[in-house]
Amino acid sequence: MPVISVPSVIAPLIEPVEGAEIVTWNVDTEPSRDDIEMVVVPPFNSPYITRLAELPRLRAVILSTAGYEHAVRFLPPDVRLANAVGVHDSATAEMALTLVLAAQRDLPTFVRAQDEGRWVPMEKRRSLADQRVLVVGYGGIGRALAARLLACETSVTAVASRARTGDEHVEVVHAVSELPTLLPEHDIVVLAVPLSEATRGMIGARELALLPDDALLVNVGRGPLVDTDALIAECATGRLRAGLDVTDPEPLPEGHPLWSTPGVLISPHVAGGTNAFPPRQARYVTTQIEHYLRTGEPVHVVATGEE
Amino acid sequence: MPVISVPSVIAPLIEPVEGAEIVTWNVDTEPSRDDIEMVVVPPFNSPYITRLAELPRLRAVILSTAGYEHAVRFLPPDVRLANAVGVHDSATAEMALTLVLAAQRDLPTFVRAQDEGRWVPMEKRRSLADQRVLVVGYGGIGRALAARLLACETSVTAVASRARTGDEHVEVVHAVSELPTLLPEHDIVVLAVPLSEATRGMIGARELALLPDDALLVNVGRGPLVDTDALIAECATGRLRAGLDVTDPEPLPEGHPLWSTPGVLISPHVAGGTNAFPPRQARYVTTQIEHYLRTGEPVHVVATGEE
Repeated sequence: MPVISVPSVIAPLIEPVEGAEIVTWNVDTEPSRDDIEMVVVPPFNSPYITRLAELPRLRAVILSTAGYEHAVRFLPPDVRLANAVGVHDSATAEMALTLVLAAQRDLPTFVRAQDEGRWVPMEKRRSLADQRVLVVGYGGIGRALAARLLACETSVTAVASRARTGDEHVEVVHAVSELPTLLPEHDIVVLAVPLSEATRGMIGARELALLPDDALLVNVGRGPLVDTDALIAECATGRLRAGLDVTDPEPLPEGHPLWSTPGVLISPHVAGGTNAFPPRQARYVTTQIEHYLRTGEPVHVVATGEE
Repeated sequence: MPVISVPSVIAPLIEPVEGAEIVTWNVDTEPSRDDIEMVVVPPFNSPYITRLAELPRLRAVILSTAGYEHAVRFLPPDVRLANAVGVHDSATAEMALTLVLAAQRDLPTFVRAQDEGRWVPMEKRRSLADQRVLVVGYGGIGRALAARLLACETSVTAVASRARTGDEHVEVVHAVSELPTLLPEHDIVVLAVPLSEATRGMIGARELALLPDDALLVNVGRGPLVDTDALIAECATGRLRAGLDVTDPEPLPEGHPLWSTPGVLISPHVAGGTNAFPPRQARYVTTQIEHYLRTGEPVHVVATGEE
């Protein structure tokens, strides 16, 4: 019976799977068994991934993060690596919606007024309802966000690297090359794309200039998607606003002008990693275990260890 | 052809209706016509409602607020009064969701850290996803909120004055008398009920004590639904949290302890009145005009002027 190790944070949530023996291991100590075939690596434990070499019967490694590049070089020969798919979508889309709503409904103003004990009259009358939202990056996070936005009575336009037909939320997915014609037609833009050479700096001075006055840019992808100086320039004049869960540089150093730019709301890279993670990772791991028992391989394989 | 007056804020949004003459009047000046049959009163113009007596052909008055008691005594004999139905649901549900998300995702902490230019590590891992939300008050606001919450992967339980069958969002609507058994089973409670002698103080020390640790109470109804002192006591110990768009007293005076109670987030009664209002009120008024032309009466009549 294959032995499969899972992190302690999700072990209590894994239903027993017939035909597999589940053991708890966080990868940060000596393995209690040398016959583990599949390892589920906990989030934030990448420094310990060298221990995988201690498992002679290892066949598969399942990460708890979407990113996997850091793990490839530690893979023993022929071992399959799968990343985490979908387990952070809910939390990240939720944080994007939180930043959008907080910015639209002027929440930072109310927090500051509360600290001063002042009941301030409302100045802005912005709503999220009726706004035209451009979701840039239409993977799991983008789809989870689209569902939330549509329930908030917005219109949603989706953008991905290539154009394709849509889904239950959008009729079509536009290509990123269409951004110049799409940006002027949207009140809110949310970036939910990974960082790559293709996406680095995708929102610079030229793209920001295409946005209508008072538009809101929200970034839950990676900081370098946006030209920070260009964003500061547009927000400092009051023309644009921003909600940023990620920044460039990150962490944002003390005294950086972004901290105090008007209309900029910053959360310190907290989109993922909520209590929504363990149950979703547990469901994903159960799928992985069942697939492994059936085929001898994990699903969502992103790399294989080389000799 | 019946002459119908509408406020300037919605006049540009009203499509021409065959068989009616639409004029613009904000009720705060002398009427330009004495043959107006139906008046749409703008929000916040209730002080001027005495002018209705100057219209000899008046048959119907349409308010822009859900509340209507203030207008009844100014109705000329036999004139029908309709309140605004549904036009503020979207904005109010949106603000409830904003308070819920801001509280769950710790947004006030990030606003304060930003003001200090500090990148703080995340302490709480709360999500909205997976939370059990009790929506107390299941009229238009409650339903609009349920739609938003379900898209955020929560479970939703609805409560109204009397039990009834549910809708597309919930299987059943529970009676308010079931609150004592429902409160312990929910992580988040949102109050969206009007104030009446039946609802005043509906959440007191006893009800708060029934909530699980770390539960969040959000109030977008009216302040006196909640016993303020009891709420302060539960939040001061860190056991409960609150997001309040309405307070008792209101406006909350300088120096009131609620301002600085830990875990309490206050917005100054801003749930309604966003830019989402004019298009919704315009649609509602169009419905009213068409109904009036067909039947000689408005819909949603809540009072009739007495001799």
